[in-house]
Amino acid sequence: MNDPQAQSFDPGFRRWSGADIETLPKAYRRNLINGLSGFKSLCLCGSISPQGVTNLALMSSVIHVGANPPLMGLLFRPDVVQRDTLSNLLHTGAFTLNNVLESTLAAAHQSSARYPEEVSEFEAVGLTPVFSDSHIAPYVAESTLRIGLTLEERLDVKSNDTILIIGRIVELQLRADAVAADGFVDLEQLGSLTVSGLDSYHRTEAIGRFRYAKPDLPPQRLDDAL
Amino acid sequence: MNDPQAQSFDPGFRRWSGADIETLPKAYRRNLINGLSGFKSLCLCGSISPQGVTNLALMSSVIHVGANPPLMGLLFRPDVVQRDTLSNLLHTGAFTLNNVLESTLAAAHQSSARYPEEVSEFEAVGLTPVFSDSHIAPYVAESTLRIGLTLEERLDVKSNDTILIIGRIVELQLRADAVAADGFVDLEQLGSLTVSGLDSYHRTEAIGRFRYAKPDLPPQRLDDAL
Repeated sequence: MNDPQAQSFDPGFRRWSGADIETLPKAYRRNLINGLSGFKSLCLCGSISPQGVTNLALMSSVIHVGANPPLMGLLFRPDVVQRDTLSNLLHTGAFTLNNVLESTLAAAHQSSARYPEEVSEFEAVGLTPVFSDSHIAPYVAESTLRIGLTLEERLDVKSNDTILIIGRIVELQLRADAVAADGFVDLEQLGSLTVSGLDSYHRTEAIGRFRYAKPDLPPQRLDDAL
Repeated sequence: MNDPQAQSFDPGFRRWSGADIETLPKAYRRNLINGLSGFKSLCLCGSISPQGVTNLALMSSVIHVGANPPLMGLLFRPDVVQRDTLSNLLHTGAFTLNNVLESTLAAAHQSSARYPEEVSEFEAVGLTPVFSDSHIAPYVAESTLRIGLTLEERLDVKSNDTILIIGRIVELQLRADAVAADGFVDLEQLGSLTVSGLDSYHRTEAIGRFRYAKPDLPPQRLDDAL
């Protein structure tokens, strides 16, 4: 084992204990804690109510769950605006995830406003719903990556009454020029953005891909010419 | 409701059905599906075994779960190299999450190699463990954002036998110059990177922050001078 350094943190750093965090003002704490998980997926989640009202919600709590079967996870906070989306996908069993581009960012952000249940956020923010023959939930026509999912599993997080929805990918539509020969999806080619904290949006710049790491080899860049 | 467009997807797009995805070659499918969730958090997870061996694992399945109480989630695939980390945190109840910088990227990637259980990835890849007085799991000294967590809840995802670990933030260390007056964490100031797919790393460039969206107001940028 390495020798641990004597000091617990460095000059120029700030430290909060669990008790310090508890006493922070609510808005400050929300910004601070939301920033800690790093850069996040930015997706528009499309759904439709049993009455046929389309719904769009901006999500940043999306994770990859597995490739076989193809699964993704979304964390929902039932007390906020996403509850229409959650209700729709629990009723219909279907939803979509669509990427956000610089050209659709303002509209995507606006979709996070608390519109009444009977209002379609598509119409309110000026994005176009598009349907496929095989999936009931609406896609975002402006997106270059569109994923159709069905409800696979629901997990209730007891610690704070949030809900993890596991969706199975049943349809995938994306710009063909963004898929490499090995299946790698070039999100920059697709124009996908990322989000940090509650409200900060970012474009990205590729550093590169690395080869699968092995204990007896140094880290190696993957040749771009696959 | 808007009129749905007649066509289900655009020229230049490629479409896969659920059945198409099932028949893809394994490596291609893994790359493709891993890329769909968008840009992801990139963290080094520090832990320690009951025998005192420190462990470091590169994680990309980290999500924000809530600010009050302060909670984060990590999805584990028990069959891969992360199993030492999972075993450690289940035994000790403690782990850390640490950001990855360009200067530590090669070492961080290398930590994803399948080292034997008795080898500390810290030593193997050349990163420095640092301990605080109040937390048993090691932090990464080179990181500018270090989060100490305790095990709060475990959820078993039946769909593919993965495990979602909910951790409670009990200590936080980060460079003071990266925290705005409203608590916003400037991840670019911290030098944090993001990852897409299995092996592609990216730096980011801020587009800006937006004000909390309201139905009766157009989207507005947040003034940087808070």
